Amino acid sequence: MASYLITGASRGLGFEMTRQLLSLPVSQVNKVFATTRADAPGLNELAQKSAGRLVVVELDVSKEATIKEAAKEVDANLLGRGLDVLINNAGTMPWSPNGVVTMDNLDDTFITNVLGVHWVTQAFFPLLQKGNLKKVANITSTLGSIAMAPQYAAGPTPAYKVTKTALNSLTVQYAIGYQKEGFTFFAISPGWLKTDLGSQNADLPVEVGAKATLDKIIGAGKEQNGQFLNIHVEGSEKKEGPNQYDGANPPW
Amino acid sequence: MASYLITGASRGLGFEMTRQLLSLPVSQVNKVFATTRADAPGLNELAQKSAGRLVVVELDVSKEATIKEAAKEVDANLLGRGLDVLINNAGTMPWSPNGVVTMDNLDDTFITNVLGVHWVTQAFFPLLQKGNLKKVANITSTLGSIAMAPQYAAGPTPAYKVTKTALNSLTVQYAIGYQKEGFTFFAISPGWLKTDLGSQNADLPVEVGAKATLDKIIGAGKEQNGQFLNIHVEGSEKKEGPNQYDGANPPW
Repeated sequence: MASYLITGASRGLGFEMTRQLLSLPVSQVNKVFATTRADAPGLNELAQKSAGRLVVVELDVSKEATIKEAAKEVDANLLGRGLDVLINNAGTMPWSPNGVVTMDNLDDTFITNVLGVHWVTQAFFPLLQKGNLKKVANITSTLGSIAMAPQYAAGPTPAYKVTKTALNSLTVQYAIGYQKEGFTFFAISPGWLKTDLGSQNADLPVEVGAKATLDKIIGAGKEQNGQFLNIHVEGSEKKEGPNQYDGANPPW
Repeated sequence: MASYLITGASRGLGFEMTRQLLSLPVSQVNKVFATTRADAPGLNELAQKSAGRLVVVELDVSKEATIKEAAKEVDANLLGRGLDVLINNAGTMPWSPNGVVTMDNLDDTFITNVLGVHWVTQAFFPLLQKGNLKKVANITSTLGSIAMAPQYAAGPTPAYKVTKTALNSLTVQYAIGYQKEGFTFFAISPGWLKTDLGSQNADLPVEVGAKATLDKIIGAGKEQNGQFLNIHVEGSEKKEGPNQYDGANPPW
């Protein structure tokens, strides 16, 4: 029995992970907190059918005050119990189609993709300390791998790439800092998914990516602390190009 | 004959690199622009003795408007010629002595160490395009190496570590983006130096680190584009611990 909190759950990967977590037995997942910055009809509908297992929480990762309010709300709902798993999923991927020198969105992207993760982790840290699993999964991307950057040269999203690299680094700082307290922090790339963020040109249906991501998150133990995980999708090893989804850790 | 611009030149590594560049023959270094956010008596003194070779320019890397003003001033001084080498040296290293979860300086550190480098590179890009060398050296640190993070676990500077990782990633984005235009972008770790930033517990006198850093910058060619360079200091290979200064590229 474990409780989960997922940020950016109104659509895409966050929504699908929420849906799939609720499809697991209550003995495995007894409570899911799904955060959204705006009203999310799809989440509300799921919540209505969940008999109290899904709680929709308002939270904007780019606004620290909303995160602190959300943490109070979740704390009250947990009635003294801790939070077991935090999935920092909210993210943004703006384009700079005219090259990195014209990039005008690095600061905003950093706030959502890195500072927001830090603020959320800070705010929920006391609840995670009381949790049984003490597991934090930061949704990153192989686009954040510096070593793989030449393979992704054509992608016009430098702010996303740089901030996902920073998120990987932040994840490792947490992993090193709180290993002794029993925490497991890792970064995981969910694959290139057919969502609003990933576009319909992406490799995988969101259902497939969400399942593969949750498999990794649920399966991760203390030996994954500080690692950069990648999903495993049967058969995708045969594909050409950088997105192999063979489950092997990407290089930093 | 080459022109240089160094940010954060009022003290420490930036000041010493400025001093050493001026000690080279005019045939090698004909002009140095040294930027400082506040009045810098040491720089002014050097400038007075430089017969016009050193130009002190006001610039605060955390304030984009001052960067744009500085670029205009440098452009006017160059009388139609380009800028050959940009050294993005300005940086900050605040502490978080109570662990990464208490870190409250990530955004400010990002602005100075990453966004500031981006803004400076943007503003001086047209002058660099007109330059002969088109070389940009971003002063990073092995503390920004994610792979080496466990070796530096004791250092209470997570914001510095995360932002230097982000700077490495940004450097590679520029390197990939402008290689075809003849640019060379690289990140270089100057070693742990006895400066205000590095403290007096550091490994090397600033003179030694500045010389080793300039050797690498001056010696770097197009084959160093997109690399993470480290200084070479004779004899330091024998030292225990992570700071070997053997001149080999650190891992990302």
